[in-house]
Amino acid sequence: MKKILVIGSGRSAVTLIKYLLDNAEGNNWQVTVADFSEELAKVAVANHSSGKAIFFNVTDDKQRQTEIENTDIVISMLPARMHITVAKACIRLGKNLVTASYVSKEIFALDEKAKNAGIILLNEIGLDPGIDHMSAMQVIDSIKENGGELTSFKSFCGGLVHPDYDTNPWHYKFTWNPRNVVLAGQGTAQYIKHGRYKYIPYHKLFERTEQMNILDAGEFEGYANRDSLNYRKAYGLENIPTLFRGTLRRKGFCKSWNMFVQLGMTDDTYKVENAENMTYREFINLFFPFNNKMSVEKKFCDYLNISIDSDEFKKAQWLGVFSDTNIGMKDATPAQIFQKICEEKWTLGAEDKDLIVMQHQFEYVQNGEQKKLNSSLLVFGDDSRYTAMAKTVGLPVAIATKLILSGEIKSTGVKIPTTKDIYIPVLKELAENGINFIEEKL
Amino acid sequence: MKKILVIGSGRSAVTLIKYLLDNAEGNNWQVTVADFSEELAKVAVANHSSGKAIFFNVTDDKQRQTEIENTDIVISMLPARMHITVAKACIRLGKNLVTASYVSKEIFALDEKAKNAGIILLNEIGLDPGIDHMSAMQVIDSIKENGGELTSFKSFCGGLVHPDYDTNPWHYKFTWNPRNVVLAGQGTAQYIKHGRYKYIPYHKLFERTEQMNILDAGEFEGYANRDSLNYRKAYGLENIPTLFRGTLRRKGFCKSWNMFVQLGMTDDTYKVENAENMTYREFINLFFPFNNKMSVEKKFCDYLNISIDSDEFKKAQWLGVFSDTNIGMKDATPAQIFQKICEEKWTLGAEDKDLIVMQHQFEYVQNGEQKKLNSSLLVFGDDSRYTAMAKTVGLPVAIATKLILSGEIKSTGVKIPTTKDIYIPVLKELAENGINFIEEKL
Repeated sequence: MKKILVIGSGRSAVTLIKYLLDNAEGNNWQVTVADFSEELAKVAVANHSSGKAIFFNVTDDKQRQTEIENTDIVISMLPARMHITVAKACIRLGKNLVTASYVSKEIFALDEKAKNAGIILLNEIGLDPGIDHMSAMQVIDSIKENGGELTSFKSFCGGLVHPDYDTNPWHYKFTWNPRNVVLAGQGTAQYIKHGRYKYIPYHKLFERTEQMNILDAGEFEGYANRDSLNYRKAYGLENIPTLFRGTLRRKGFCKSWNMFVQLGMTDDTYKVENAENMTYREFINLFFPFNNKMSVEKKFCDYLNISIDSDEFKKAQWLGVFSDTNIGMKDATPAQIFQKICEEKWTLGAEDKDLIVMQHQFEYVQNGEQKKLNSSLLVFGDDSRYTAMAKTVGLPVAIATKLILSGEIKSTGVKIPTTKDIYIPVLKELAENGINFIEEKL
Repeated sequence: MKKILVIGSGRSAVTLIKYLLDNAEGNNWQVTVADFSEELAKVAVANHSSGKAIFFNVTDDKQRQTEIENTDIVISMLPARMHITVAKACIRLGKNLVTASYVSKEIFALDEKAKNAGIILLNEIGLDPGIDHMSAMQVIDSIKENGGELTSFKSFCGGLVHPDYDTNPWHYKFTWNPRNVVLAGQGTAQYIKHGRYKYIPYHKLFERTEQMNILDAGEFEGYANRDSLNYRKAYGLENIPTLFRGTLRRKGFCKSWNMFVQLGMTDDTYKVENAENMTYREFINLFFPFNNKMSVEKKFCDYLNISIDSDEFKKAQWLGVFSDTNIGMKDATPAQIFQKICEEKWTLGAEDKDLIVMQHQFEYVQNGEQKKLNSSLLVFGDDSRYTAMAKTVGLPVAIATKLILSGEIKSTGVKIPTTKDIYIPVLKELAENGINFIEEKL
């Protein structure tokens, strides 16, 4: 009997927990789901005979010690900043740990200690980061092994609404944390193209998109992520001339979203005075020069140099930014207020399904020939609980956990899944679960 | 005999020190000029019989204690963040302190202690902050005393080049800290107009300027400062419908400067990779989409939607951003690199003189009548040492120091010069020194 402790049973953990419970009997597992909300943990376990739901407070030193001591492996689905106390306990008690989060500096610093304790701290094994690493490395390694030299690698990922439930002019709904979507891209995006470094400030980001078709799912556009340059080292592509990572939206989204970026409505650095007494309409009016002879709609069009007949204007109007609804928030930043406006229109309905889209675009030279290869993934949500996001985040975590317990993954230290010992078996089982990449030679 | 300790003898202190030495004999003062560079202190004192130059390390607890104990008043011209240790020593030792810097939170928190010690910590008594407070409050108090009600207050200030030495198409040279000029405006500007709050993000700031003529000095434009709303409380204008503070440049500057803001060249949040091997031309090319079939100049014009015949393009070219000069800096931010480029063209020459411009614009209702009043100041530098900036920062500090020593200023606690006991005598003596505002009823 092997014991698995899952800490955190929120939205991103449902498919993970289902997989563990579904496979518990066959593998002789006992699954404990621990959450600050015992209720939430109970819903996730659903009285399964191999499962147990417990109240868990990660900041309670004694409970943390007891529960981790009493398990064989820990999965932390907590917010990223909370992993560190769990990781330290795992090292002290000699237990393996799996997370879907980026390796923080603090976690990274535990590498030596984890090795000495003979355990693995496996991170970045969700969707993005996670499936992106594994699927990209599989192609990169294969190209290299066949004597190819990579000249360009672009990688895009997005969480979107399932085409059958795409019922608004933005072709977008929130399928994940709305706050992160509203703040997305702030800072400066960095990438490299044909050997030239390129930097895009936030206020230019949504103008400089790349367009693409992905399989039979239609047209998308990608805007640059902040951190493309970091991936050179992680992927062993130190000298690649072109490296770009981006976030996917449906075609036309970025141009319209950019209107609000230009106005300053996604700013999260200050609080709007008197917001509690304002309407949405008064909120957007904060960002135009004063003019009491012109409607807010006219000011919007003039300031952004768009026509009142344009799709952009219609999308803004559909979103409700000109409405007389009260904000009903105090001490809120523009980003927080704008998030509330967006949530009224973009929240995924109970019947809605989501869509995960990923595409890697490779260019390489093999035997003197220029070659192009796309590797693409589409994952559709089953319903509003077993979403594409929950599946793509949860399944790799679950599969990796199984592989660590069974001894197939033997590495120790702080790891991400960029090596074959991890990505080969995980990708294989993901494919068996319907998460498989389609390769297209162009 | 009264002893004055001036800590810091940099560029901003030269007029201050000259005033103190010139007036030392008549007032029976002994002036000690203390600087980490004893050389700089010696140059400032110039063997004056009432002056003494010493090496001074503000972080040396013992020396700080000894020197402050041994004086009657302290003037700190150190960088703002270093005032706090001096202020604490002044409270402990019961000595008055004068600075030209904004009141920090740490300094503000010393109010009660300063009162208990029976001393004044007088801050913000330079140019801006300083002369702006005093000159504005004099008009504001006068309007209120005559039964007027202020409906609008706009205030602008700028450090520019003397018109006789204005020899470049930007009509600008650095007359103060170039780094602050390059970073100026970052964040979000906030003001209020006709009772409406208005917010301007940095990337829109240099498009939303106000134009004005100031006395006989020609045309200027002002862009919004970050913090206009704070002045409501400081000036007792809590309910004023319009309040705006801005920075002045010569007409046309902002539109051209905005090109570099749009490109992201003033970004100070990340370091440019490989800058040490780049030219200025390669640096500006970082900010355009990749295109190896188009010249950098063409990309610049296309991206910013300007013509190659435009004044904007000519100004950019004059500044040297397209030149093949090596950057010669490592681990530098875009803002640091761009500052270096600007410094090559905008550094004030040894024969150049500077100009300080300030204008307050008041609107008020008196006896049912709408009235408008401008109060404007022009100060010309004498030479490259006794600049308009050094005069306007140093003289109010020096005069206030004299008034504290003579007992005319009696307040204790943390103060700024917004009250009559301070601004009346200081403005009077500033006028005697040629720093006087011209009022125009419009």
